[in-house]
Amino acid sequence: MKKLWGGRFTKSAEDWVEAFGASISFDQLLVMQDIQGSMAHVQMLGACSIISNEDMEKIHSGLVQLQQKAAANELEYSVANEDIHLNLEKHLIDLIGPVGGKLHTGRSRNDQVATDMHLYLRDEIAGIQEDLRSLQTVLLEVAESNIETLIPGYTHLQRAQPVSFGHHMMAYFWMLERDYGRLQDSLKRVNISPLGAGALAGTTFPIDRHLTAEKLGFDGIYENSLDAVSDRDFILEFLSNSSMIMMHLSRFCEELILWSSQEFQFIEMDDTFATGSSIMPQKKNPDMAELIRGKTGRVYGHLMGLLTIMKGTPLAYNKDMQEDKEGMFDAVTTVRGSLKIFAGMIGTMTVNKAHMEKQVQNDFSNATELADYLASKGVPFREAHEIVGKLVLLCIQRGIFLKDLSLAEYKQTNDAFEEDIYHYLDPYTVVERRKSAGGTGFSAVRKAIDLAKTRMQ
Amino acid sequence: MKKLWGGRFTKSAEDWVEAFGASISFDQLLVMQDIQGSMAHVQMLGACSIISNEDMEKIHSGLVQLQQKAAANELEYSVANEDIHLNLEKHLIDLIGPVGGKLHTGRSRNDQVATDMHLYLRDEIAGIQEDLRSLQTVLLEVAESNIETLIPGYTHLQRAQPVSFGHHMMAYFWMLERDYGRLQDSLKRVNISPLGAGALAGTTFPIDRHLTAEKLGFDGIYENSLDAVSDRDFILEFLSNSSMIMMHLSRFCEELILWSSQEFQFIEMDDTFATGSSIMPQKKNPDMAELIRGKTGRVYGHLMGLLTIMKGTPLAYNKDMQEDKEGMFDAVTTVRGSLKIFAGMIGTMTVNKAHMEKQVQNDFSNATELADYLASKGVPFREAHEIVGKLVLLCIQRGIFLKDLSLAEYKQTNDAFEEDIYHYLDPYTVVERRKSAGGTGFSAVRKAIDLAKTRMQ
Amino acid sequence: MKKLWGGRFTKSAEDWVEAFGASISFDQLLVMQDIQGSMAHVQMLGACSIISNEDMEKIHSGLVQLQQKAAANELEYSVANEDIHLNLEKHLIDLIGPVGGKLHTGRSRNDQVATDMHLYLRDEIAGIQEDLRSLQTVLLEVAESNIETLIPGYTHLQRAQPVSFGHHMMAYFWMLERDYGRLQDSLKRVNISPLGAGALAGTTFPIDRHLTAEKLGFDGIYENSLDAVSDRDFILEFLSNSSMIMMHLSRFCEELILWSSQEFQFIEMDDTFATGSSIMPQKKNPDMAELIRGKTGRVYGHLMGLLTIMKGTPLAYNKDMQEDKEGMFDAVTTVRGSLKIFAGMIGTMTVNKAHMEKQVQNDFSNATELADYLASKGVPFREAHEIVGKLVLLCIQRGIFLKDLSLAEYKQTNDAFEEDIYHYLDPYTVVERRKSAGGTGFSAVRKAIDLAKTRMQ
Amino acid sequence: MKKLWGGRFTKSAEDWVEAFGASISFDQLLVMQDIQGSMAHVQMLGACSIISNEDMEKIHSGLVQLQQKAAANELEYSVANEDIHLNLEKHLIDLIGPVGGKLHTGRSRNDQVATDMHLYLRDEIAGIQEDLRSLQTVLLEVAESNIETLIPGYTHLQRAQPVSFGHHMMAYFWMLERDYGRLQDSLKRVNISPLGAGALAGTTFPIDRHLTAEKLGFDGIYENSLDAVSDRDFILEFLSNSSMIMMHLSRFCEELILWSSQEFQFIEMDDTFATGSSIMPQKKNPDMAELIRGKTGRVYGHLMGLLTIMKGTPLAYNKDMQEDKEGMFDAVTTVRGSLKIFAGMIGTMTVNKAHMEKQVQNDFSNATELADYLASKGVPFREAHEIVGKLVLLCIQRGIFLKDLSLAEYKQTNDAFEEDIYHYLDPYTVVERRKSAGGTGFSAVRKAIDLAKTRMQ
Repeated sequence: MKKLWGGRFTKSAEDWVEAFGASISFDQLLVMQDIQGSMAHVQMLGACSIISNEDMEKIHSGLVQLQQKAAANELEYSVANEDIHLNLEKHLIDLIGPVGGKLHTGRSRNDQVATDMHLYLRDEIAGIQEDLRSLQTVLLEVAESNIETLIPGYTHLQRAQPVSFGHHMMAYFWMLERDYGRLQDSLKRVNISPLGAGALAGTTFPIDRHLTAEKLGFDGIYENSLDAVSDRDFILEFLSNSSMIMMHLSRFCEELILWSSQEFQFIEMDDTFATGSSIMPQKKNPDMAELIRGKTGRVYGHLMGLLTIMKGTPLAYNKDMQEDKEGMFDAVTTVRGSLKIFAGMIGTMTVNKAHMEKQVQNDFSNATELADYLASKGVPFREAHEIVGKLVLLCIQRGIFLKDLSLAEYKQTNDAFEEDIYHYLDPYTVVERRKSAGGTGFSAVRKAIDLAKTRMQ
Repeated sequence: MKKLWGGRFTKSAEDWVEAFGASISFDQLLVMQDIQGSMAHVQMLGACSIISNEDMEKIHSGLVQLQQKAAANELEYSVANEDIHLNLEKHLIDLIGPVGGKLHTGRSRNDQVATDMHLYLRDEIAGIQEDLRSLQTVLLEVAESNIETLIPGYTHLQRAQPVSFGHHMMAYFWMLERDYGRLQDSLKRVNISPLGAGALAGTTFPIDRHLTAEKLGFDGIYENSLDAVSDRDFILEFLSNSSMIMMHLSRFCEELILWSSQEFQFIEMDDTFATGSSIMPQKKNPDMAELIRGKTGRVYGHLMGLLTIMKGTPLAYNKDMQEDKEGMFDAVTTVRGSLKIFAGMIGTMTVNKAHMEKQVQNDFSNATELADYLASKGVPFREAHEIVGKLVLLCIQRGIFLKDLSLAEYKQTNDAFEEDIYHYLDPYTVVERRKSAGGTGFSAVRKAIDLAKTRMQ
Repeated sequence: MKKLWGGRFTKSAEDWVEAFGASISFDQLLVMQDIQGSMAHVQMLGACSIISNEDMEKIHSGLVQLQQKAAANELEYSVANEDIHLNLEKHLIDLIGPVGGKLHTGRSRNDQVATDMHLYLRDEIAGIQEDLRSLQTVLLEVAESNIETLIPGYTHLQRAQPVSFGHHMMAYFWMLERDYGRLQDSLKRVNISPLGAGALAGTTFPIDRHLTAEKLGFDGIYENSLDAVSDRDFILEFLSNSSMIMMHLSRFCEELILWSSQEFQFIEMDDTFATGSSIMPQKKNPDMAELIRGKTGRVYGHLMGLLTIMKGTPLAYNKDMQEDKEGMFDAVTTVRGSLKIFAGMIGTMTVNKAHMEKQVQNDFSNATELADYLASKGVPFREAHEIVGKLVLLCIQRGIFLKDLSLAEYKQTNDAFEEDIYHYLDPYTVVERRKSAGGTGFSAVRKAIDLAKTRMQ
Repeated sequence: MKKLWGGRFTKSAEDWVEAFGASISFDQLLVMQDIQGSMAHVQMLGACSIISNEDMEKIHSGLVQLQQKAAANELEYSVANEDIHLNLEKHLIDLIGPVGGKLHTGRSRNDQVATDMHLYLRDEIAGIQEDLRSLQTVLLEVAESNIETLIPGYTHLQRAQPVSFGHHMMAYFWMLERDYGRLQDSLKRVNISPLGAGALAGTTFPIDRHLTAEKLGFDGIYENSLDAVSDRDFILEFLSNSSMIMMHLSRFCEELILWSSQEFQFIEMDDTFATGSSIMPQKKNPDMAELIRGKTGRVYGHLMGLLTIMKGTPLAYNKDMQEDKEGMFDAVTTVRGSLKIFAGMIGTMTVNKAHMEKQVQNDFSNATELADYLASKGVPFREAHEIVGKLVLLCIQRGIFLKDLSLAEYKQTNDAFEEDIYHYLDPYTVVERRKSAGGTGFSAVRKAIDLAKTRMQ
């Protein structure tokens, strides 16, 4: 078919080349944003007397019709029209005649597509922020009802010190809070308008970029037209922020998978979030957690992909940049889907409190207390550490725990030990006493939860 | 709907969770491979008397019907059936009754999906190898008809020494030849059968893995069942090889884009492979080259994605691995499409011989000759280099080229210069004399082209 | 040698394993931060009466001595002492005796190293922000003295529309401004204190985390101890921001390299920032620009490396995280070095104004004007575009430019053309008239420069 | 100082720019390869009468002296001489006078550095192959002495079916075997000579590239000079292969870390490969396994870095490529170190056979047997799966295992069950019966070990 830019050309592109170059198969996701941008643009053209009010009205009403059709999924797209912009323009001209051609006055596809992407991402970031808040809300609930539930705390996947299960949940709350903040900060660079930058140099038409920016809800405009059409930072920043969200979820997934194993048995996934095996009838797999952990890779990949694309490309727009979209769309879908699944998964899982508490009664995760005990009695910490290390070794060799050693045995090692050590060795006491700010002590966890609630408002 | 693995479960998965976990939306691309694998499997089950011949025949004929329907695009897939394997099994049972359930005897989805992927990739690698050969053939043609076409050779994008345009084309031939070789080598690890590894441990049924391997055209079998179901090396190796192909093409694209610029004007893209601008009527953009350069990022991203997915996952199968497919499919599509477009692009471009030759007449890319000239007369190369550097500076200051200096001026600098230097300064001579193996001398290029033809056979 | 944590162990690590696990070879870069953190910690221990004031004084004075030795490069480090923390503690104990062991009361290496990294990165971010400001200052100067210098503007590396060279420079100013802003935003997550989180759970000692945070100049504290010791977001965010800086520089490099080529000849690098060839005496290579473009890869690699490291690691600290440092250190060095070289490179390059202006006189980059001209006279833009496309083709076939067509010829095509088109076709006019906000019109560029100056303050 | 390429220049580079551009700080690692390459080159120059035999002898004896000094670490390098090539040339000229300048006849730094890298990588690949063999040998030993040791086999980290611990070890053997094969295949592209390609175009001197290739032990030569100097595929292929080795190790590490946890207790690391905590006296951390898992990220990063560097760079050499070295060097160090640590770690760990066997006696990992049992009696597998799923659920609800159900209860569910099911449910029988090729049956594992030994020869 005849290209809208074909005047200078002598041959028409063969179909398969056309299909390779066309973006309509994926950029149709921007249909609503594209129409929204056109509406603002045409109103501005009218307001600035670049086109007549009559033409403006005609075009605007055509756009309203397109919007309705798009909402009803009634628009058809053609590869021959390359992309969403030319497809919509063709539809517009079909609807209202050649006057539709005036819509493109004072803009180019380069600033148009950039505008669409900014609008799209702004909306989806808001959506992801809501999804984060939902998951945070679930985390807060689980945390609040488990402040005094004990769980072994790990470093190096070795039992380290017992902690509050609520405290552990809250660790993820704060990660997500940073994710929320990063997205919020990114809006300074997402929610600005490239519209009116033209192909690369601005335009000779007396347009009003601030007017379109305002109509579209942007907080400001790009101050340089070359930058406006060739900037993809805002997508990269989004992909980076998305990668970090996925990384956080992947860590959480790792723990959920561990905790669901027969060896840990700390939690049980609700049937909704687990699947079975086609061959092993006993299996209950924490599939969703594994899948989300795996999906981390895909988002990292999109980040690396776009970083590669942008590396070393001269100003201004290059066709390479058409490759910015699919990764962005997929990252949005992946992050939002993962956050939603997560909220459901966490909100419905069974926490095996009794089993977890039994664990912390029978391990050496209270050993630090002994060292701290000695240190508080004036033994230099390094020496205390050494003493306790030897006591642990002794217990391992005898198959017992620290609470099982007699006071006489303790005193034999160091005279500073007194009867009260048995109180300090109790895991409940161990956790309870870690009252330092941000610590796992019950009172500290309660304070942190209260603070978290304030942040959410 | 009822899950095929649902006996142990008390709740059915909600729809949206189901959709998040299902792979049918993309693994349906493996439909033919899945049926092919099942056919071999059921024939083996019969041959090994694990099922009766009668059952075998029934199942096989059911599979033949499925194959025909799949070829005719008549199969419908349901998210409730999760993946291509369960979808097909459901169809089979609908067609031939409960006996269809016997097909899954002695195998698991874990070895089944691995088998599908191996079959798929083996076939697509062969396809890519053909695509490489097609592009190499075009390169050979362009090279052969441009052996004596001169073009500036660059290092650091500065003119270095004139070269044969045919020689330059052949540089890419050899890159693609390495790509071909890498794919060929990878078949040792792609074309082996995981079928019969079961869920992870092999099976108690007296199956014959070598028989199914043979029927499926595999060169051998995985020697360890745990490895067979959890290996994704073959996909990573493919993505790595694909990344290198794209990297090569991206370098070529960069040159084509440069050469198409008004500043270089070395080539002109055929209209089929160029596009215009929606706003600038004079534009003829080398879009396809830019797009392929950009698509490099997406393949790199898939590689990085799968590397991330596989990192740190314990044996054997984990759901994370479901994420191995979309990147692989997309890499295949991208690489194959790019190679095809490239062959067309290179085969139809106009080489501006006259313009290029004019360039090498008017630059300093013959300066090395002077240094070599002096070196061949016994001046240590480092000293010769220094002398010529000064002559170049002199020319630049006077706005002339080396050929424009008089013999007297040459002799003034160093007495070893003779009249014959003007001959040596001629770019045609410069190129012609680089007869060293693999060099740009016309005779060397001809030899390399002959060798290349032999390699292609 | 004897390990500080060795009480529980029965064998001592062999030397080569020790060396593999030790981090002292690189984390010694944190020596000043580690001492700084210890100083704040010990003062707090004293203030909170956790240790006696006497002990506090002794330890503090020991730390002062260590600080002086470190500043004078007089500290020796040993692999047997693993890392900077244990090396310093050993030195401290050597200096002041066993009381030095009390320094570690109420903290762990896990919160200690996190504190060091936060301090380090906070300082280096400030340094990078200064480097950005220096480069931006140079850019402003070059831009300001080239507002009316014309250069071809490109899309797809095809000449699109002429632009102001100053405008082009300013595009990079704004990219760097976003980089500055992203670094600034990241401080919310960098400049917070993990100190006092202990190994993972907080501590039973009555520490005051807000006091140490204040003494160290932090803006706040981590609200969760598990999060505090296992968070590496702040490094990832830094690596992501660094990747974007490098990406921006890589684009600029690409242009500088193009512009330095014989084909473009828009700029000439100062000799300081160019190098020659060991074999080709005429070469003047824009090495620094190429090198920086290449260094983009290394920073991307560090980002991808740390994303991989963090993926799927359970809480809290795992040894994997030791791998967070070298990439961070190298990214700092790379980004800072590149920014400094850039400022020098841009500030000393020669801009070939005359040559660039000649270029825009003899190309079709004024074609958009004709289309806009017709559009402004009521011809729908799409139709205008088509008309001009044909005129361009006509010119190419006749080997002339748009300014060379007669008015009669123009009128023959469309009656709306008048004598004034020759004025509009002049590249100076073309640029001058793009007065839209952020456009390349001289007045718009001047405004943008003024705005930029305000931002810098 | 005076540059060897400085004739054309008017200013000398400032020191800090010089340092930024210099590579001597890291490419000095190539000193032996560089001398080796020069020796072959000068002998060829003599043999081809390009220089006199006398000159050849002088230069060669100078190189021998340099080699001795390098071996004794007596060479000093200067940033002013940029790189290892110019540093060595300077040293040579200092030793033997201006005749040393003739060494560079007929070659360029571009082919010289490429030669060094090929030599280096060829040698290190051989080293890594040895390291792989060492680790494989240890794996074989551990496997052979644990053929009949039972361990739970997992999918989704849920117990799936019991397997032989020897079989599990062998899974990693075969992964490493693929790694070995990939490295071997890569030699086709690593062990070829770029020497004689000159700066980019070959040379006019009558050199004999096959002679130098032979002297250096290369299997062939690059057939295209442009390709020879700008190819970095061989490093990328190495980094990709290294990434896969690290990925395999990271999976193994994940398992070792899990198995070392108190929850699993399948193995215990030897003290040599574990470390303690500065604060928690009871800790024994599997540090080496964690560290290697983390180091995966750094190698991935190097791969991504070089892929980025090479993307979109035009032919031939560009300074960007100087960035190819540090990642390569670091990958070599990382992979070799990790493999060595691994062999030690695996070879010294304690396998808790009794504990592991107790695990498989008390879980549902024998459930597949029941389904297979029914299937072998003619029940369609899908139906059998359903039946067993219900039995498992029944057991879970009653807190018993499958072996604890009475025959009457079995028969109530399906009449096909007979007394012999208790035999089939025994985990030893479960494993023993999986005799399919590559399966976990003891006889199959023995066969696989024998085959593995053959492969190693």
